[in-house]
Amino acid sequence: MHVIADICIVPMGVGASVSTYVTTAYGILRAAGLNATLHAYGTNVEGSYEDVMAALKRCHEALHAAGAPRLSTTIRLGTRVDKSQTMADKVRVVVEAAT
Amino acid sequence: MHVIADICIVPMGVGASVSTYVTTAYGILRAAGLNATLHAYGTNVEGSYEDVMAALKRCHEALHAAGAPRLSTTIRLGTRVDKSQTMADKVRVVVEAAT
Amino acid sequence: MHVIADICIVPMGVGASVSTYVTTAYGILRAAGLNATLHAYGTNVEGSYEDVMAALKRCHEALHAAGAPRLSTTIRLGTRVDKSQTMADKVRVVVEAAT
Amino acid sequence: MHVIADICIVPMGVGASVSTYVTTAYGILRAAGLNATLHAYGTNVEGSYEDVMAALKRCHEALHAAGAPRLSTTIRLGTRVDKSQTMADKVRVVVEAAT
Repeated sequence: MHVIADICIVPMGVGASVSTYVTTAYGILRAAGLNATLHAYGTNVEGSYEDVMAALKRCHEALHAAGAPRLSTTIRLGTRVDKSQTMADKVRVVVEAAT
Repeated sequence: MHVIADICIVPMGVGASVSTYVTTAYGILRAAGLNATLHAYGTNVEGSYEDVMAALKRCHEALHAAGAPRLSTTIRLGTRVDKSQTMADKVRVVVEAAT
Repeated sequence: MHVIADICIVPMGVGASVSTYVTTAYGILRAAGLNATLHAYGTNVEGSYEDVMAALKRCHEALHAAGAPRLSTTIRLGTRVDKSQTMADKVRVVVEAAT
Repeated sequence: MHVIADICIVPMGVGASVSTYVTTAYGILRAAGLNATLHAYGTNVEGSYEDVMAALKRCHEALHAAGAPRLSTTIRLGTRVDKSQTMADKVRVVVEAAT
């Protein structure tokens, strides 16, 4: 099952600035080969359901190990069986239509 | 890794009324032993990360098999290592403080 | 525009336990007359778009005033024009079909 | 109250392909002067709370008028009072640290 997902991990119980945690998570998602693309409120990834969920678990484990006592993550997760579609496809069709 | 999660699966490309799909997903989450609790905009579940993610995958597979060409799911996912906490704990402490 | 929403406010930069903040927000949503219903990972509310968004703003203002330097909120927001539907309707139809 | 938000509007009860709806919403967010930045699973915006929420309401109204009987939107909404921060700041600090 191929998925396109958007992941935002929020560390709680640490300071208000969490960029070091976000950087760690982003590195794990990139290292997992998920075509990770950072934006201002999360990271887009695409791949198999198992690969995405395994990488997300490693993010939680790594951020807890780095000192975050609590994490609250939000995920958007899209699957479709009518056609195959990449993250780049999704962005391109809107940008082309909008311009 | 124990997680408390909240899952909302939105079927696309079918009619505006999706309760049959929601009922199917809710049944899968309950059958998985995840202490699934339905509310008006999703379902709370708790269990191991692997069990929750395996059940969610079965939901996507079942809803596609039932005719939904596309699914857009949102998940809130909480983990903490400072103490153990159940879904019932989370609700009780607020309700008691609020009354 | 009538909306059914689900709101989860996550305080950052404070301790890992945030129930006092959640209690404050829940009280504001209830006082706003939004039929607020707490669950283990957020609060369901229903009302006019303006009333819901005004109450959510008051939550952010109150939690910052209470000491949270940063807040990360997630909202699910549903509107429909094909029929009117309450939060209780949404839950009832699934629970009846599931049992 | 300045906010950084991420908005994903999901049309229900129409076909599985919804790019025309997404294009309409993206155009409304851009026209509102919210520094809207599209990604593969939503759009980043920043501005005053009132401006963001007013633009989002116009998106819902426009998509319903365009034929979508039902919409399910997810929003991430961030506010902070410890320092001012733009969307570009958030991305830059992570990208610089990650490379």
